[in-house]
Amino acid sequence: MRLRNVKNKQEILGSSDYLVVNPSNYCGKWSAFFGNSHPIHIEVGMGKGNFIMEHALRYPDINFIGIEKYDSVLARAIPKMPKDLPNLAIICMDASDIHQVFSDEVECMYLNFSDPWPKKRHHIRRLTSPVFLKKYASIFCGDFHIIQKTDNRDLFEYSLLSYSQYGYILKDISLDYHHSLYEDIIMTEYEKKFLVQGKSIYYVEVVCHVSSELKKD
Amino acid sequence: MRLRNVKNKQEILGSSDYLVVNPSNYCGKWSAFFGNSHPIHIEVGMGKGNFIMEHALRYPDINFIGIEKYDSVLARAIPKMPKDLPNLAIICMDASDIHQVFSDEVECMYLNFSDPWPKKRHHIRRLTSPVFLKKYASIFCGDFHIIQKTDNRDLFEYSLLSYSQYGYILKDISLDYHHSLYEDIIMTEYEKKFLVQGKSIYYVEVVCHVSSELKKD
Repeated sequence: MRLRNVKNKQEILGSSDYLVVNPSNYCGKWSAFFGNSHPIHIEVGMGKGNFIMEHALRYPDINFIGIEKYDSVLARAIPKMPKDLPNLAIICMDASDIHQVFSDEVECMYLNFSDPWPKKRHHIRRLTSPVFLKKYASIFCGDFHIIQKTDNRDLFEYSLLSYSQYGYILKDISLDYHHSLYEDIIMTEYEKKFLVQGKSIYYVEVVCHVSSELKKD
Repeated sequence: MRLRNVKNKQEILGSSDYLVVNPSNYCGKWSAFFGNSHPIHIEVGMGKGNFIMEHALRYPDINFIGIEKYDSVLARAIPKMPKDLPNLAIICMDASDIHQVFSDEVECMYLNFSDPWPKKRHHIRRLTSPVFLKKYASIFCGDFHIIQKTDNRDLFEYSLLSYSQYGYILKDISLDYHHSLYEDIIMTEYEKKFLVQGKSIYYVEVVCHVSSELKKD
């Protein structure tokens, strides 16, 4: 994600109804925040926000929470969003704090075009590293469920090994998502760009059947 | 595998020291057949045999057994093989009989460029279908261990799901085997051809930690 400074950044963020300023206050209580018991889906690294916003529009009976590390990125994403979506919230935070913001309440997590951290010594920073998979364990209600898309082969190979070795089972996979049989795909901004360039998009859906052991770890 | 008739097929096969005519006689006793207790690796669908023959030459302390369904293919493979490799045997049989030929004695299985059986109603014939994975359960000694290469995306995606859902864990994977960091790869005839054509080769290594439950199934 290229970061350009945005004028009036604080003003844009401050005036947004979607941005939740103290998200850890709602840890374990996001259903109360939304005022209903609909399933909660989160996108870690929402970037410019097209994916999470389109999902919120298409699926009104699911609550969507977008997470993004950089406030400059959010300041560019938020003004483009439609007003008054009751099932959308946005959080500005680092993914490494995720276990302090959610507890036994997330049904599904999306990881779209995450930073591939190509250097070997940085692998641990990948959002699918064992360190992060362990952090995610406490946020899910029921089975753990992650859906990932990426154009990065190394990250995809790494993620498949990491999921499998952690205990996740592959539920669905495509090594060329847009030339497979999936219909009506909601795309991220990156995805649209890569598609125009003719790049393959990798897709995987994994589930980890809950055992109390994994929850406790 | 294109099948061309081979003159003197029976003669070639009959005179080969490598071909084992009644393989089920050795079920559970392949170490006695080889006269040593070296690990046993098998290739299911050995085709023209370059892969298994090169492995036998390179790794004299592993016993290799190549399996091929078509005698016409073997009649073309056998004359090209060097003589007197004490750690090589060949079996002509259908893979679906594999559990009648091996019992608690195979350390590793190779599946190279297996028939992709592209039609949905034929999926069950793929060598990585749940039907076959179940057959393999009784042949391995210790953990189940399969190494697969293919150029076929559909077969590869299917196989990854099938392995994972059966209980295998991904140990290693490459979506572009020949442009990854692997060294000194022993290739099949198909693989050499595909490499020249610039096609990507998919590679995966999976293990399934033995539980008495899976063995019994």
